[in-house]
Amino acid sequence: MQAPDRLAALVDGYVSDLALTGELGQQQESMRYALAGGKRIRGVICLAVAEAAGGEAEAALPAAAALELVHAFSLVHDDLPALDDDDERRGRASTHVVFGEGVALLAGDALLAEAFRLALSYPTTAPARELAEATLGMIGGQYLDITHANVDLSELHRLKTGRLFAASVGLGLWAVGVPHEAQAPWRAFGDELGLLFQIVDDVLDGDGYAARLGGDAARLLAAEAASSARSALAAIPADTSVLVAVVDGLAVRTS
Amino acid sequence: MQAPDRLAALVDGYVSDLALTGELGQQQESMRYALAGGKRIRGVICLAVAEAAGGEAEAALPAAAALELVHAFSLVHDDLPALDDDDERRGRASTHVVFGEGVALLAGDALLAEAFRLALSYPTTAPARELAEATLGMIGGQYLDITHANVDLSELHRLKTGRLFAASVGLGLWAVGVPHEAQAPWRAFGDELGLLFQIVDDVLDGDGYAARLGGDAARLLAAEAASSARSALAAIPADTSVLVAVVDGLAVRTS
Repeated sequence: MQAPDRLAALVDGYVSDLALTGELGQQQESMRYALAGGKRIRGVICLAVAEAAGGEAEAALPAAAALELVHAFSLVHDDLPALDDDDERRGRASTHVVFGEGVALLAGDALLAEAFRLALSYPTTAPARELAEATLGMIGGQYLDITHANVDLSELHRLKTGRLFAASVGLGLWAVGVPHEAQAPWRAFGDELGLLFQIVDDVLDGDGYAARLGGDAARLLAAEAASSARSALAAIPADTSVLVAVVDGLAVRTS
Repeated sequence: MQAPDRLAALVDGYVSDLALTGELGQQQESMRYALAGGKRIRGVICLAVAEAAGGEAEAALPAAAALELVHAFSLVHDDLPALDDDDERRGRASTHVVFGEGVALLAGDALLAEAFRLALSYPTTAPARELAEATLGMIGGQYLDITHANVDLSELHRLKTGRLFAASVGLGLWAVGVPHEAQAPWRAFGDELGLLFQIVDDVLDGDGYAARLGGDAARLLAAEAASSARSALAAIPADTSVLVAVVDGLAVRTS
């Protein structure tokens, strides 16, 4: 079993070296730009689940990369002027600032399609189906975010953030062949991750839960979410020590 | 075997009644708007291939709908101000004019993800893999279109139009279980369709091949493309009469 930072390096190396579809031509440049520099949290969770479930991390790399590509797709499109209009991402100029809005729009589209190509490298349709459903839930969350200012925050985040975190667990399981009937305790853990990630995000940014509840109450809520995630891990009949370290890292992260 | 207009009605009914992902909420409205009113040519080809190959058209309906959703996704995104900035589509206001740019961007994203969900309803990964690869080729064509004014027209159209037409044949074959080793003559036909469609499109719009070669020369090229498609059909060991009617319809269409 490999530590989270070792898994992050695995995901990052795989994503950096990924062979994109040749017919994309120079469009690839904008995609690689959009893919660079992430923390690879979703990919790490996917690999850590695969290893904890008794499989090889390497077997889960295409699934982990697919999750990172869907995440990158969502960021590139979110940053466009038509949505959040953010000029910066991961400490650099956003993809549309560097390559123009048209190329950035196509880059997001292509990242999503490449994500499916990766998820479809497994022998069954299950990983790609879970990725499609999670992506659709995430888009539903983005829709709520741009159209309903007073929507229930927990439902918004369950969709916009939580669906892809939950799928990170699900794809890790499918990637190493854990059958559906053995997945329930793992999935209970996956359902806790998005909330934990999002509350900490809001505390760091001073918005969302932190703005709604105040910083102290939000930090308390984050501690509760981390505790729930650890309880869910304790209920899994496997060595989940690396996933405990992932949860600890999510709870105390400062960026 | 059903005539092309009967197959178009089948596709249209299936697409109209399609159950979209519940988590998309009201985002569904913009997607249904974007899906309405197409000629369903790609879906018709998919069903006609499925029937000609000895299967049931109904078995190919999810694949046909997946193709139509990818086509609709590409139109919604193409029409955005960041790309072609078209305010009209299929005789109505474009999706972004009615719903705003942000919702239209998400509608395109969700149509693409729903297309994969449909293609993933088959027992193997093959239909979804072919859809992913065709979509990536199409995006590569869109990239050439917006960045290279003097690119080779045949390569641009092979990607931007031809890849999805070719996949319409491929998905029809996979949907009814035609094995890879029996697909070659069908695929040779599929490779002719995009060029035929595009030249006629250019003649009708007075651009592309028609602008490059002149209207008469473009019409001659269209007749040659139709003739090549019919020859490819003649080489298939099956009753391809409905596909001959589809080719005839593509060659003489006026809208």
